[in-house]
Amino acid sequence: MSFPTDLQIARGASLKPIEGVAEQMGLGPHLIEPYGRDVVKIRLEAIDELADRPKAKYVVVSAVTPTPLGEGKTTTTVGLAQAMKHIGRQAVVAVRQPSMGPTFGIKGGAAGGGYAQVVPMETLNLHLTGDFHAVTAAHNMLSALVDNHLHQGNPTGLDPHSIIWRRVLDVNDRALRNVIVGLGTHVDGEPRQTGFDITAASEVMAIFALARSVQDMRERFARVVVGYTAAGDPVTAEDIGGAGAMAVIMREALKPNLLQTLENTPVLVHAGPFGNIAHGNSSVVADLVGIRGGDYLITEAGFGADMGAERFFNIKCRASGLTPDAAVVVATVRALKAHSGRFTIAPGKPLPPELLAESPDDVHAGAANLRKQIENIRLHGVSPVVAINAFPEDHASEHEAIRQIAESIGARAAVCTHFADGGKGATELAEAVAEAAEEPSNFRLLYPDSASLREKIETVATEVYGAEGVDYDRKAARELDRHERNGFGNLPVCIAKTHLSISSDSSLKGAPTGWRLPVREVRTSVGAGFIYPICGDMRTMPGLGATPSAHSIDIDADGEIEGLS
Amino acid sequence: MSFPTDLQIARGASLKPIEGVAEQMGLGPHLIEPYGRDVVKIRLEAIDELADRPKAKYVVVSAVTPTPLGEGKTTTTVGLAQAMKHIGRQAVVAVRQPSMGPTFGIKGGAAGGGYAQVVPMETLNLHLTGDFHAVTAAHNMLSALVDNHLHQGNPTGLDPHSIIWRRVLDVNDRALRNVIVGLGTHVDGEPRQTGFDITAASEVMAIFALARSVQDMRERFARVVVGYTAAGDPVTAEDIGGAGAMAVIMREALKPNLLQTLENTPVLVHAGPFGNIAHGNSSVVADLVGIRGGDYLITEAGFGADMGAERFFNIKCRASGLTPDAAVVVATVRALKAHSGRFTIAPGKPLPPELLAESPDDVHAGAANLRKQIENIRLHGVSPVVAINAFPEDHASEHEAIRQIAESIGARAAVCTHFADGGKGATELAEAVAEAAEEPSNFRLLYPDSASLREKIETVATEVYGAEGVDYDRKAARELDRHERNGFGNLPVCIAKTHLSISSDSSLKGAPTGWRLPVREVRTSVGAGFIYPICGDMRTMPGLGATPSAHSIDIDADGEIEGLS
Repeated sequence: MSFPTDLQIARGASLKPIEGVAEQMGLGPHLIEPYGRDVVKIRLEAIDELADRPKAKYVVVSAVTPTPLGEGKTTTTVGLAQAMKHIGRQAVVAVRQPSMGPTFGIKGGAAGGGYAQVVPMETLNLHLTGDFHAVTAAHNMLSALVDNHLHQGNPTGLDPHSIIWRRVLDVNDRALRNVIVGLGTHVDGEPRQTGFDITAASEVMAIFALARSVQDMRERFARVVVGYTAAGDPVTAEDIGGAGAMAVIMREALKPNLLQTLENTPVLVHAGPFGNIAHGNSSVVADLVGIRGGDYLITEAGFGADMGAERFFNIKCRASGLTPDAAVVVATVRALKAHSGRFTIAPGKPLPPELLAESPDDVHAGAANLRKQIENIRLHGVSPVVAINAFPEDHASEHEAIRQIAESIGARAAVCTHFADGGKGATELAEAVAEAAEEPSNFRLLYPDSASLREKIETVATEVYGAEGVDYDRKAARELDRHERNGFGNLPVCIAKTHLSISSDSSLKGAPTGWRLPVREVRTSVGAGFIYPICGDMRTMPGLGATPSAHSIDIDADGEIEGLS
Repeated sequence: MSFPTDLQIARGASLKPIEGVAEQMGLGPHLIEPYGRDVVKIRLEAIDELADRPKAKYVVVSAVTPTPLGEGKTTTTVGLAQAMKHIGRQAVVAVRQPSMGPTFGIKGGAAGGGYAQVVPMETLNLHLTGDFHAVTAAHNMLSALVDNHLHQGNPTGLDPHSIIWRRVLDVNDRALRNVIVGLGTHVDGEPRQTGFDITAASEVMAIFALARSVQDMRERFARVVVGYTAAGDPVTAEDIGGAGAMAVIMREALKPNLLQTLENTPVLVHAGPFGNIAHGNSSVVADLVGIRGGDYLITEAGFGADMGAERFFNIKCRASGLTPDAAVVVATVRALKAHSGRFTIAPGKPLPPELLAESPDDVHAGAANLRKQIENIRLHGVSPVVAINAFPEDHASEHEAIRQIAESIGARAAVCTHFADGGKGATELAEAVAEAAEEPSNFRLLYPDSASLREKIETVATEVYGAEGVDYDRKAARELDRHERNGFGNLPVCIAKTHLSISSDSSLKGAPTGWRLPVREVRTSVGAGFIYPICGDMRTMPGLGATPSAHSIDIDADGEIEGLS
């Protein structure tokens, strides 16, 4: 008998009434609002009401630099949380909401996998409670107000060519990347070139993920820069008259969503900002609730530790004021073998057969990446724990090789089999995380607000990425000067680069040295509160393949969903 | 003290627990799913489970040809339903969900008004349970699949210039009416001109409003025509591989939403198709539930009786199989005075002072419109009742004039003051409706499926609109021939014309005669199941004014919404 599919496992789950899951976090009925049978939203009053409860240990799950297949970070996050119950502790999970659009492209469901999943998976992967739809609506309402502003006489003197506020949709639609709007007659607006990004890439998404309250969200919307005057002065969403209405559209969305794992562990699913042009972490408000909801709050940061974890520390923790106690670095045999540089892994293709042969040497040959990502955690004063995420094709000697690499630099490590075994497959990891979190936290931000933007970029590039330095294109240098002049120099930086290498060149594996970070341009998310230098081609609107999964997603004769993996 | 605003009245409402409202309709806890505190969705199993309960009398609320200000049709629908309780009967309301986008333009909330409102009004006017967002997502996923189909080799031979499937967003954004997509490089799709409509204008909206079950909806999506081959053969959503995924996206949305009036009458709010290019009625499934939920099911049809009621009879009742027992025609003093042709009423401007002077003669001078709309109800074998919707500036003699017009042709009439007085202000109307509904129904469709498209158009034009005949542009004639050839000739017609006149010329008041209906083109909603001839300029994407209401909508210091009227 073959291993059941994720959907089969999810359908067989025994869900606990979600009100009971909430109760377990200290959330009484007056603090929750049901959405369907298996999901509740949590009122933000919970943050104050729970303030007297003990604070959970705060654990972030990161990874080595992943292959294009991903290394099971969400699965490990869920498995670790499930395992806590097996060692007598209570955990709360906080993860991003997956985008619905890509579900109809090539991506499978983003709810973990195997026996470490968030359920109900159909709800999670489709609309959930509509938060992404609210982001789409708030974003595009500001877009309409911007074009209307031009149409109605342009009182701020907004330069149409300077407009950086595009439109968004949660769909994989390459034809929307570059569009001309405003065609027709004089009543149909002003023609100009612009485009659409996927909703996850909206600054509204990043703002809602970083806001601490409705009022804070409202103030961040006010600061959104939509473009510039001819003189180079920023024009904001407040200037355009859209910030208040955006807050009204997003008011309900700011309440975190509560679901559960297959083993009934509470899971906060909230916000889903992009991992390259944004910070790639779930919401601050969810963590402010979850930090009072159990013994451990376990959250996930996108991509490898150089990406998601660095932003988790320097952007999200800076915004939330919360202090992490431990960080998990998920490592897989296939990823370390790939970091040897001896194999090529491509999405949608089978693994090369020679990669599947037992070879601890190949694992050791990729050790530099794991060592550097462990160091990236330690740079922030946090205790790392290596989670060796086991796959069926692995060999014990290869797991042992990963353990040796970790322990050779003093990091804890544990093999885990939560995909096949659920929480009981990750108890060794849970014990290791519990130990690491007991160590005193020396958490530190990598740079102060007061450093210049160039200093911030150079600190991340050299200390985290291992670059020898940073090269700025003329355009990037000009933009940095302008951003400093406009008073944005105090913001943290979110460096948009490939997630497939610690460097900015996706073909370089391991822990590349002897390279310089090329910054082509420097964009802003002033409302969200970060500057994002662009180092490479960042695609913010995916396309569909020749055979998108939409073709095989359908309802069956009983009205049940089929084809959602 | 001035009369309180709608928002003030709505905030002061004493809501009954929505589970109790559902119970009153026979909907036990297993048939409902909560969405927030005050709204539930109703499982479609309810249709079968309630089949043994007595069938309600089915009442549609229509109107005289409205002024641009509207004549209070939703308010009367709500007021009449509230009044039923005052005369010892139990009513259920079924109305369309308002679009969110226009709420940030000029339009006020669409939840009735005064003491005849649907609550909670903020929920109703913002996202509700996300059904419109689901329509947007399902529609645009098919759009992305269409462009991807072109990009991936165009296996069906779809002619890019023939594509009729555009994109939609629930926002007032004139700049999106006409766009070019697919710019950039060869990986960014195929450049072509297209555009966006507001979500209410989506065929997905019309389909979801007319479907009788999830399976029926799935089959309607399959039949959607997205464009044609060079040979003129239709290419469908099924051919493109999108119909199943659309059904998955829309599965939850098909469950009707239950809210309540200020007096705790159950209100089904479900779907919101456009009133000119679509049929403008709330959903069939809501009515299939509501028809077993009380003594009266009271629903509303958009615009005047020539528009919404005609489509209600010939499109919606044809799809649902339900038989109406009575029809209310809402009439106002200002509308009948406007139909005298002696006054001009413009949106956003005060009423002309001479219209406010007491003048039953001016009312009588507009009588032809009311008489024709009463006749339009009788054409379908249904008993009409005239609701004289009182405004503060009216005079009793003018109400009496309307009553005389109605009674002179044997129709019941009643003055109602539900706006100021709630249900107790509409008890006379409720009694009249109850009497009318007791008369045996002679309901008949205006034309059989088997009539040709030209015969159907001509029947509506001459019998309902009072035209002398129909003139087809060459393009329209060619399209009619093509639609018949493609097997769409059996569908009913939904004639898209101005709602401000019974004729196709919005400046003609009363009941115009001696004119011919000009048909410019003939479009299809094959999935929804109707053909729509275009007679005039139909705007399917609104714009924003110089001072959109978005500018004054905000959250206050307590996080409450302000500025939503």
